Amino acid sequence: MIYLDNAATTQLDEECMDVIRQYNLECFYNPSALYRKAMENGNALKKARGIISKSLGAGSQEIIFTSSGSEADNIAMLCSLRAKTGRVIVGASEHSAVYNTALELKVRGYDVEFVACDSYGRTDLNKLKDLLDEKVVLVSIMHVCNETGALNDLAAISKIIKEKSPRAIFHSDGVQAYGKIDVNVKALGVDLYSVSAHKVHAPKGVGALYCRSGLFLKTFVFGGGQEGGVRSATENLSGIMAFADVVERNFKDIKGNFNKVQEVRAYLKEQLQDKFDNIKINTDMENSSPYIFSFALNSARGEVLVHCLEDKGVIIGTGSACNSQKSTKRIPQALGISNSYAQGMLRVSFNEKNTKEEVDVFINALAESLQELIKYQNKSTSKDDCILSRLKLR
Amino acid sequence: MIYLDNAATTQLDEECMDVIRQYNLECFYNPSALYRKAMENGNALKKARGIISKSLGAGSQEIIFTSSGSEADNIAMLCSLRAKTGRVIVGASEHSAVYNTALELKVRGYDVEFVACDSYGRTDLNKLKDLLDEKVVLVSIMHVCNETGALNDLAAISKIIKEKSPRAIFHSDGVQAYGKIDVNVKALGVDLYSVSAHKVHAPKGVGALYCRSGLFLKTFVFGGGQEGGVRSATENLSGIMAFADVVERNFKDIKGNFNKVQEVRAYLKEQLQDKFDNIKINTDMENSSPYIFSFALNSARGEVLVHCLEDKGVIIGTGSACNSQKSTKRIPQALGISNSYAQGMLRVSFNEKNTKEEVDVFINALAESLQELIKYQNKSTSKDDCILSRLKLR
Repeated sequence: MIYLDNAATTQLDEECMDVIRQYNLECFYNPSALYRKAMENGNALKKARGIISKSLGAGSQEIIFTSSGSEADNIAMLCSLRAKTGRVIVGASEHSAVYNTALELKVRGYDVEFVACDSYGRTDLNKLKDLLDEKVVLVSIMHVCNETGALNDLAAISKIIKEKSPRAIFHSDGVQAYGKIDVNVKALGVDLYSVSAHKVHAPKGVGALYCRSGLFLKTFVFGGGQEGGVRSATENLSGIMAFADVVERNFKDIKGNFNKVQEVRAYLKEQLQDKFDNIKINTDMENSSPYIFSFALNSARGEVLVHCLEDKGVIIGTGSACNSQKSTKRIPQALGISNSYAQGMLRVSFNEKNTKEEVDVFINALAESLQELIKYQNKSTSKDDCILSRLKLR
Repeated sequence: MIYLDNAATTQLDEECMDVIRQYNLECFYNPSALYRKAMENGNALKKARGIISKSLGAGSQEIIFTSSGSEADNIAMLCSLRAKTGRVIVGASEHSAVYNTALELKVRGYDVEFVACDSYGRTDLNKLKDLLDEKVVLVSIMHVCNETGALNDLAAISKIIKEKSPRAIFHSDGVQAYGKIDVNVKALGVDLYSVSAHKVHAPKGVGALYCRSGLFLKTFVFGGGQEGGVRSATENLSGIMAFADVVERNFKDIKGNFNKVQEVRAYLKEQLQDKFDNIKINTDMENSSPYIFSFALNSARGEVLVHCLEDKGVIIGTGSACNSQKSTKRIPQALGISNSYAQGMLRVSFNEKNTKEEVDVFINALAESLQELIKYQNKSTSKDDCILSRLKLR
């Protein structure tokens, strides 16, 4: 099976199974207990926190472990605000963990505005400038768009925010950027930055939030006071240790992996454009993470193609897995994708090991799938506005 | 190493490592994605939900997976209330995840009252009755006290609540009861019930909340809409699957394990009383879970003894691990423990495999530890009110 839906989740790095085993069977002690074996686990967590903080260019006191990227986004947006009113500015193409939390802030009385993005999912800096003023208390703009790979220039955005909205806290969802492009939270100028373990070959159920030293977070989960009192619960020890293990081993050549994946993606684009007509490409090849490529087929249903492709041994996605089970039109609308293409959105997302050969298999599988669907449609007696009616193969 | 701190956390059931491996390396797909491999994981989660719900006597639509027991408690108490004001009644000896969430409800404007417990940590039903009235919107009383093992008669409490406070929602923290005593949420009459995986030899980072069908929960984590929209995030697939695996295999003889552990605990009590003077027993041997035994030594420091015991190969706790790093006096005060005993609180907590032979090793280690400490004290020139000044060995 060729797996090209790495933005949804990744296969675990097998090497970290040893760490998972170790912290479940040998060093399973509760890190909050007082005996040495427990305190050794407390120290192990401290080391893990150091590894994650270093990978973000942060201090180790600036990292809170969470159970997911979504939870990190929620804590960032729901627990950082001291002002009870004010304006909140959020990108229109944000992941639902940010978008829906913004809607909650609206319910809680904040004046929430969504800043438009261009057709590639990149936040429009001029429109952002127009929305910023001294009343803004929070801005949340993702680093890499999970739908298209669009890369936002956080350093530039941070500068604009500081000028126009000096009171504002700046959060960024870095889930699709972390481990894929160089991230240094200090250089980016963010106050809060969310990451997730399972997008980088570490286990599901673990995330982390960078919170700039000096910025106070209210409690999200009340209890024994773990994670600086922000998020109480016995720590997910083996998950956190496995996360740190993967980051320590695999984040050594982010630039090299970037270049490799960029070539694979460029090849994919070339092949797609070469072999198929009526394809709309939603990814800007310049200002983006090479790990994500989004395109849409005219009058085709992405879901149907995903199933056909799986039969031929290739897994791709229709977009954010989190939204895939709902018929939300938010993202196509934010990208300005016309109705005839909106249902045909597909996302290919790579990991650092995917190859051009795998792209070839995908391209062939896509061609075969489309041929089958056209055949099926021609046999059908229905005169409805059917899938693929205007789709052609070259 | 003899491990007698199972109420803090347990060693993973080694057999479930296969499941952890499987759902991280083979079936790692995001359950929210649309392809078959992903939907198979969605079905696996459904099956896991069925197993957990069955273990609680609930319907499978009544279970929400969380990242911890603490989170389950928080969701139960923060997300179930429709009334914006009203009275909230919480046990005085509750775990900090419930106690501190109750304090948060106070901040949010609810009239929060703590109902006293007896010296064994059991909620005083007469005092509860006095506090209940028609204004009560939420009651939270734990099933088994994590400090002492005290067992609250939830069915009786539920009946009283229904009579005196018909509007009230009844939540119980069942973390220390689950898998140890028979739990049937319908028979207990609770609306909400929290459990945790890592207390029953399943992984840390997984919990579950029973929420009675018809009771609406507000969103706790906003995002892609997983867990019925209450708690969004890519599911902790391997953790949940391992949890269900352990429950399915190990919950078959809850009664048999109960009887076995009860004998081991009775033996421990007998040996302690036989060999040591000036010991205060905080556990009612009748109305309690046999998995927990709490006692206190006069003028001794529990923490010092825990370290001595560890040197001799025995791990016990000083009480709730979540509170052990804070010098909180809440629990000794709730139990009415005098100052001279309060610092000497110790908790022995069993799993179903602990034996009388292990108790013997513990008793000998405790005797040796006390002798060493007395020797150390006699050598010391300090005339301060030193540890162990009134502690005697028979």
